[in-house]
Amino acid sequence: MDFREKMTAWGIRINKELDRYVTEYTGPGSNIQKAMKYSLMAGGKRLRPILAFAVCETLGGDIEEIIPYACAIEMIHTYSLIHDDLPAMDNDDFRRGIPTNHKVFGEAMAILAGDALLNKAYEIMIEHTYSDKRRFKPGLSAMKVIAESAGACGMIRGQVIDIESEGRDISVETLETMHRCKTGAMIKAPVLAAALLCNASESEYEKLEEYAENIGLAFQIKDDIMDVLGSSSQLGKTTGKDALNKKATYATLLGIEKAQEFLDKAIDNAIKSLEEFGEEADFLRSLAVFIKERNN
Amino acid sequence: MDFREKMTAWGIRINKELDRYVTEYTGPGSNIQKAMKYSLMAGGKRLRPILAFAVCETLGGDIEEIIPYACAIEMIHTYSLIHDDLPAMDNDDFRRGIPTNHKVFGEAMAILAGDALLNKAYEIMIEHTYSDKRRFKPGLSAMKVIAESAGACGMIRGQVIDIESEGRDISVETLETMHRCKTGAMIKAPVLAAALLCNASESEYEKLEEYAENIGLAFQIKDDIMDVLGSSSQLGKTTGKDALNKKATYATLLGIEKAQEFLDKAIDNAIKSLEEFGEEADFLRSLAVFIKERNN
Repeated sequence: MDFREKMTAWGIRINKELDRYVTEYTGPGSNIQKAMKYSLMAGGKRLRPILAFAVCETLGGDIEEIIPYACAIEMIHTYSLIHDDLPAMDNDDFRRGIPTNHKVFGEAMAILAGDALLNKAYEIMIEHTYSDKRRFKPGLSAMKVIAESAGACGMIRGQVIDIESEGRDISVETLETMHRCKTGAMIKAPVLAAALLCNASESEYEKLEEYAENIGLAFQIKDDIMDVLGSSSQLGKTTGKDALNKKATYATLLGIEKAQEFLDKAIDNAIKSLEEFGEEADFLRSLAVFIKERNN
Repeated sequence: MDFREKMTAWGIRINKELDRYVTEYTGPGSNIQKAMKYSLMAGGKRLRPILAFAVCETLGGDIEEIIPYACAIEMIHTYSLIHDDLPAMDNDDFRRGIPTNHKVFGEAMAILAGDALLNKAYEIMIEHTYSDKRRFKPGLSAMKVIAESAGACGMIRGQVIDIESEGRDISVETLETMHRCKTGAMIKAPVLAAALLCNASESEYEKLEEYAENIGLAFQIKDDIMDVLGSSSQLGKTTGKDALNKKATYATLLGIEKAQEFLDKAIDNAIKSLEEFGEEADFLRSLAVFIKERNN
């Protein structure tokens, strides 16, 4: 399978598993599952679970063992988007080309659907880890890295900096902290979690961490560039909002040209960090290039 | 120590531990910790962690081993209150006698503070469980019960039913499902988690579950009765809101007298379920009476 075919195949597999996780009961209150599923199954690149799959493949691990953690990370990512889109936060009407969760289900349900997805993420990881004692140690170490990445010292910290920075001048340093937390942490999480689940050596773990940090940075710079240059239909969300909201981004702070240079450099570094893995890491290399060249 | 002294001593211990868990960094984004701590340290009875302590004591377990799970449950409870109070949900201005989180920190920060507390709850449980392999099995089993209780089949389901029921006639059956989920699940969670962490026998586990179900029901009925009879200053929150919002409650659906009968019966049942534990369960017995007689 070439890169695109594998991306598609893994994406289909992930969608199937995600769908399976969120159908449990009928009767009073069961509407929450519709709201959860609406955003969870609204497409998206599945970049985070695919990263976990790719690291697992690179290390010769068993993808079946990765699935619950990969799906949990996608649930955490989805909950953060639902809450980010709320009127009190970014107040977005569209996401992935369709109305945002609160536009369809109302604000109260959207808040709860986000909460429920975050909780569900832990529920499925805990259940899978608990179900076989051979999973206790690797599973707990993977959960630890995921919890730290998602929390008030990781992704949520980034969201807070984002809110606090709106309409204010911030330094490139603060911008970097913001993105390392807001986007970077949850791109690093599937890479590190998969490495831990597949018993990576210390050196392999470090190299993969370097890879993840660089593609995380690249992903954000590309996002910022697309917000300036991209069209709304390509992105499936409102563009030009960053400038409108006076949000500091790599593009607005450095200018498009310099931002593009930063992007190229980050991708080069990501690919360099994979040297010791040989051709087993070809998918991860293609994924780095994909992140640079994507247009949505 | 008599019941009140022990309540106070345990409450102080829990507050100390909770405070310790939420101070980690300074710099950009660190305001989230203030918002988390504001609601987490705003008082409250600490009923849930105290229940975990009491079950641990009844079973002769080590309270030190219970602390992270007990604190995690209090964090989950607190996050649910912050989100419940939001304008899009119950739109409450006061909680525990002070302005609600979003009144002080704004809606965006309140949403994130809730998210961060939920995530932090898992983070501390996972970290503690992972730190010693003897904790792997009991810790994971406790986390499993907590995750199920907090999620879309537990507490969140109850909140959804609550929202969907507002201004509508609902059956006593639906009201019971709502409360079994909304309040009951997270009162049961510390009892069951502590039982699992202290290696309760199957029979002990069942009896404690029965106890927890009955005090959970009693807690909610008492809440409903107080909303009708209590004064705002005693409760630290707005009273009479249920009738104002046409919310179905035990008090509005059954009438005060019948609701009081239900309450007495539930407490009797709770105390009966403790028979086999002897005087070791005296605190749990007093706690049941306390729930019936409390006025805030």
